[in-house]
Formats: sequence, C-alpha cells, structure tokens
Amino acid sequence: MKCFIRYEKYCDFPIENLPYGVFSTKDDPTHRIGVAIGDQILDLRQISHLFVGPELKNNQDVFKQKTLNKFMGLTKKAWKEARDTIQNLLSVDNQTLQTPDMKKKAFVSQYEATMHLPAEIGDYTDFFSSIHHATNTGIMFRGKENPLLPNWKYLPVAYHGRASSVVVSGTPIRRPNGQTLPVEGAPPVFGTCKLMDFELEMAFFVGGPSNELGKPIPIEKTDQHIFGFVLMNDWSARDIQKWEYVPLGPFTAKNLGTTISPWVVTTFALEPFKVDNYSQNPEPFPYLKHDDKFNFDIGLQVDITPKGLNVSTTVCRSNYKYLYWTAKQQLAHHTITGCNVRPGDLMASGTISGETSDSFGSLLELSWRGTKPISLLDGSQRKFLQDGDTVTIKGMCEGDGYNIGFGECVGSLLPAIDM
Amino acid sequence: MKCFIRYEKYCDFPIENLPYGVFSTKDDPTHRIGVAIGDQILDLRQISHLFVGPELKNNQDVFKQKTLNKFMGLTKKAWKEARDTIQNLLSVDNQTLQTPDMKKKAFVSQYEATMHLPAEIGDYTDFFSSIHHATNTGIMFRGKENPLLPNWKYLPVAYHGRASSVVVSGTPIRRPNGQTLPVEGAPPVFGTCKLMDFELEMAFFVGGPSNELGKPIPIEKTDQHIFGFVLMNDWSARDIQKWEYVPLGPFTAKNLGTTISPWVVTTFALEPFKVDNYSQNPEPFPYLKHDDKFNFDIGLQVDITPKGLNVSTTVCRSNYKYLYWTAKQQLAHHTITGCNVRPGDLMASGTISGETSDSFGSLLELSWRGTKPISLLDGSQRKFLQDGDTVTIKGMCEGDGYNIGFGECVGSLLPAIDM
Repeated sequence: MKCFIRYEKYCDFPIENLPYGVFSTKDDPTHRIGVAIGDQILDLRQISHLFVGPELKNNQDVFKQKTLNKFMGLTKKAWKEARDTIQNLLSVDNQTLQTPDMKKKAFVSQYEATMHLPAEIGDYTDFFSSIHHATNTGIMFRGKENPLLPNWKYLPVAYHGRASSVVVSGTPIRRPNGQTLPVEGAPPVFGTCKLMDFELEMAFFVGGPSNELGKPIPIEKTDQHIFGFVLMNDWSARDIQKWEYVPLGPFTAKNLGTTISPWVVTTFALEPFKVDNYSQNPEPFPYLKHDDKFNFDIGLQVDITPKGLNVSTTVCRSNYKYLYWTAKQQLAHHTITGCNVRPGDLMASGTISGETSDSFGSLLELSWRGTKPISLLDGSQRKFLQDGDTVTIKGMCEGDGYNIGFGECVGSLLPAIDM
Repeated sequence: MKCFIRYEKYCDFPIENLPYGVFSTKDDPTHRIGVAIGDQILDLRQISHLFVGPELKNNQDVFKQKTLNKFMGLTKKAWKEARDTIQNLLSVDNQTLQTPDMKKKAFVSQYEATMHLPAEIGDYTDFFSSIHHATNTGIMFRGKENPLLPNWKYLPVAYHGRASSVVVSGTPIRRPNGQTLPVEGAPPVFGTCKLMDFELEMAFFVGGPSNELGKPIPIEKTDQHIFGFVLMNDWSARDIQKWEYVPLGPFTAKNLGTTISPWVVTTFALEPFKVDNYSQNPEPFPYLKHDDKFNFDIGLQVDITPKGLNVSTTVCRSNYKYLYWTAKQQLAHHTITGCNVRPGDLMASGTISGETSDSFGSLLELSWRGTKPISLLDGSQRKFLQDGDTVTIKGMCEGDGYNIGFGECVGSLLPAIDM
C-alpha cells in the first residue's frame, strides 16, 4: 500500500494506521473530523461526498459533524468501508485527491492544527485490569499474603469515572487541594496534594448502535462495539484517594482531570498486532469467555520532563498486552446487568503495569510508595510528580516495515491554587 | 397569589411550585419544556416571546430547547426572572394567557403528555449523605462498634454513577443477572439477582455556567449552581453489589437503571421549607462550612404495589431533612480538587433514612438484611423486591394553605432475561 503523501517510514501515522480525530485551525475554528496521515490531516468534511459505498452513501453527514459520535454510532461494516475508502483515496494510484486544488483543500498540516476531544464522552469508565498493577497496589496496601481481592480474577473490576473532566492531550492539569490523613488515627488535614501521580492507561471508545437498557451485549458481539483506542493518563492524587476511597471508590482524587491522546486508532489498524490473550485461571464465566484473540502488542512509554528543561527521562516501558482482562470482557461485564452504552463512551484499562519494576505504570509503583525514588536524567529525583513536570505517554505497534503509532498523550502539572 | 387555572387546594403543583419538565404529546412528539400547574402543563415553547425581562429577553431560545440544559445554564437571577414571569402570567389579574386562543395553544393536560428526562445528564454522582443510612449499613456489614468509617463525618462520601442509565419515572427496570457470592470463601456463581432493592433518594440538577477545570466552586457560590430537585429511586442489586464493590465501589449493581421524577422543583419553591441544617460534629473544614440554612423539610414516602393488585403499601416514610450533608456541601466537595460541573449534571443524596425503623429508605434496612420481612397490605411479605413489584416514591412539602409536591417517581420490576 503506497500513499501519495510522503512520510518517514517509521512515523506514527502511515497509510496502515489512519486514526480519526477532531481538529480546528486558526483560520477556521470549526471543529471537524480528520484522519492523520504522515504529518498531515485529511479533512473529512471536505471529502464527505467521496464516501459512496453502500454503508456510507446515505450517511455522509457523519463526516461533517463536530465530533466522532455519529460516525462511531454506525456499524463496524461502515467503519471498515470508511477505512477502505480513505486508504484507496490516499493511494498513489488514485488521482482524486492529488490535484493541486484538492491537495490544498483537503489537507492540513498537523503543526497548524489544534486537536480537540474526539467525541462527546457520555460516560467514562475506568477498569482495573492489569494483574501486575492490582498485585502491586494490593501488596502495598494490604500486604503480601493476599494481594488480589477475591473478586479480581472473576470479574473485571471497574468504577464509573467523571466524563466532564476528560481532556485532550496538551491541557494542563492543576495540582489539587483536598483532604488527606497524614497520621493514621489523627484527624485529617486540608491542604495541597503531596502525592500527585500519573497512571499509564489506554482506553477504547464505544461504537455501534446503543444497546437498550436491560439488554446486555453478548461477548460475541462486543467487537461490533469497540471502535478504537487512545492513550490515557489518569492523573491521581494518591493521598486524597487513600483517605476518601473507602467504601465507595475513588472520587475527588481522580475527577481533577484525565488526559487522552487525540487520535483514535481503530481496531482495524491494530489487527496485525493481535497476540494471545492473557492466560486466565480460574476460567471465566461463559458471559466473559471468548477464544479469539483480543489482546494487542502495543509498546507504551512514559517520559517525565521537569519544567524549564529539555531533558526527558523515560520512567516506564510497558505494554498493553499485560492486561489480564480483554476489552471484549470489559464491555461484556459492563453491560451484564443491563447497563446501556452509547457511541462515544470511553472505557479505560486501568494502570498498565508489566512484571518488571521498570514497567510499572505509576510513580506509586515505580517509587514503591515513595520508598525508592526514581532518578531523572537532569539529576533530580522523583517519588511523586513535582509542579511543572510534563508527563508524556507514547504508544507504538512495531509492524513489518511500518509502525502504528498513537501520537502522544501529554500534560503538565500546574501548582495548586491558594485556598 | 391566585391562579386562573383551577386546581385542588392541596395538589402537587400550585402556583407556588412551578416545576420544570420536558414533555411531548401524541399529536406533537417534539420534546419541549413545560411548567406543571394543577393538572395542566404550561408549554413554554408557545410563550417564549413573553419572557421580556432583562435577563431573558435575549435568551428566549432556552425555552425552545428539547431539554432544560440551556435554561439551567443561565444564572440564578435568570431563573428567578423566569419564575416571576410565569407566576405573573398565571395570575388571575393577568389576561395574556386567558384568551380562548392562548388557553388552547399554551396548555396541555398532564394526562395527555408523555414526560421525558428533564435534561441531558452529562454526569451523575451519588452521595452517601444520610447518617442513619450510613450507620445502618455500617452496623450490618462491619458491626456495631464503629459503623461509620473514619472519613464519613469529614467529607460527603460519594461515587460517580452511570449517567446513561438514568431514566424517567415510568420506565420499567429489569432484574439483572450477575455474579454473586452466596457462600463466603466458596467460588462466586452467575445467575439472577436475588436481592433486588430500591433506594429512596433525592437529587439536584446543577445549573449556572460551568466552572473551569481546576477551579473549585466556593461554598458561598454553590447556591448559584443548584437549580432544583427531583425524587430518585437508585435501584440496587444488593447481592451483586456485595461481591463487586471492594475496592472501587458499586458498578454493575447500580448501572442497571436509576429512576428520577420528571418535574424539577426549584430552590425558590422550596425556600419556605428551609429548616436547620443537621448538626455537624466535628466542625467541617472551612471549604465545607456554611451558616445559612440549606436543608429542607420534604416529606418522602415509598409505596410497593405487587403486580396485578391495586393495593399499595407504604413501606417507608422519611424526610429529606435527615441528611447530614447539605447540597451546598456536596457541590463544594465535588469540585474541591478542581472537577468541572456542567448544567444538567445530576447529584443524588444517597439513600435517605430517618432514625426510626419505619423511615429507612431501602428494603435492605427495612427488612434488616432480610431478617425482618415487611408485611404488605395484600398479605404478602417482602425481604427484597419481587418481579412485578411497582415502587412509587412521592415527596411533599406541607405549606401554609398549599403543598409543594414532587409528583411521582415510579418504576416496575421486570423479571430477569434468561441467559
């Protein structure tokens, strides 16, 4: 597959990728849907009339929206047709977009674009699906004996998160104030969060028609409802979380901001990177059982860049494939009691930690609760994040002669406001 | 204040109430905004041009929307102006709506209307603010020694709920299937929920302009962001909840459906029913402290009607005033770490239980975990809900010569689907 747009061989966005996003430009602040190709964006609003296949010819308006929700709400068949159409239009053999006029009209440089949230997120859910992360935090907070709670291997544990505070890469995040309990047994104190952390996650956007309330999505049909994936940083105020989370789960420690990368990489692009599912024991209940592969080899990396310095340190290298529960299982479980899901809903993996200590997906684990500070290349150390730190998450599938990249999920930590 | 629409003296919706809702009719399925008056609905779409005060003359479009979000997003000053305008238009002394033509055009009988969700709910949060409910469940699950967890009196504990599964009164709810742990220590089983429960709650809709992410709403300004209240039934699958909720909180046990009443009663209508706030000890942190009253004397009642019978039994009489934390404190706490809230967000109180055993707001408490079955008037008994049971929640403020009613929050329990 050769593309007429030139790009570096191992760039994030070759013709095999074609992730969807929502962008605007200085000249035209309208939010619109685009596809990343090399360092360009193909503006789908400008070419919506070229989607003339059976699934899309009567649905061209989905490409003229300000978010991807309507497109996500079509069927997997329609998503495939869109991908095939775009790949065809971008191939060297197709002249349609290669006229000077169309080249000018339909392409925008990524450097000139401002990216926005890809969809209006109706609901956001955060799973807890990495066995290494669950084990690590279990050991830290409950001891080595039984780090995993009894339900963990039976169901993909999750909680409902806050949709309003999901922001797009680049949005600064403010260190919060809140209640913490510095001394066990003493009264809590109010003040600035001292244990601010990142969490390396990935998340998928729900697609397909909504299921009706009361009707679970069977595991066999879940792939019809998984549109694509983004990177996520689930910023966490650890000291606030610890004091507040019993018995109803994390609340203000998490709703201060959750960052996602702007480009949604589809399951089609990830197809060649499928690997065996994580081995599960005990065998899951039938409603959670699927034999086909739905795990992906996606290399993940977290960098910290202190303020004012151009020196980034990679503090974690992990991989999506370490997840115990698949996205299919997450979705089947989410709807098992009848919960309705809607296109544009976001479902996150939970912190993705690998087995080795350099693959842990949070500073909580990397510094083992602050007992083992991490050294950065500028000579400074981190137990938790400092004001001005920029956290950058990258994701990459390494293919045969090409990569499928996820771009970046970036955020800088602002100092807390005075209260 | 005398209204030209006639109604029973102690009806739910006198001219002192004027709750907002969204309705449609058989003849015109467009969702539109109305105000309940007696057994009629005043169709605001038809009279939007009559809102000519300084706050609304340039915002008349808010009354032509399909939801209340835009109206909720205006200021408290605008809400007050809308109320004054409507009260004036409905008074006997004002002829504007009393012409045969306007009477026909602007009023719809409630019996002919279908009610819808009043707003698009961006996010839904469920608090846990009744001290009696928290104490009861604490005793049941952790014993009599320390029923309240250490954080409970320091912060209004809450969790993020599922917005997609909030439905309007009248929507049937299906008994779910899911995982439970019938025998402690043995493996869990999959099957039909056996301990289906209601939860008597109230909830407020957030209004006013959104706060920016990272900027808490100070307690002094919270009243500018509390639009009005509805009744809520937070259906709960107790056996599923028990197995899943540690450590991240309730998930599939709650996202099977949450019912709210369709009419949003404003804080203006509730003003005469303010009572002292619940006495708090220890004194709350300054960000949670307010001296003005923001507690309300709202009588609440739950009825169960078994299928096929017209015999309803009142199983609970409670009151909103039993809540320990005020709605102001809930909102201030919700945003303390910087969470942004948006008009149309829904914040629920948690189960409202009083001190006495007939005022407990759930069957879990009323039947004391199934140990004390409740007798219904038809001779049957309940530990938990049975298929076909209809649960009706009502709310009422008793005023001087008039009532402020909340209408009804109704739902029937359908049998589980075969899996």
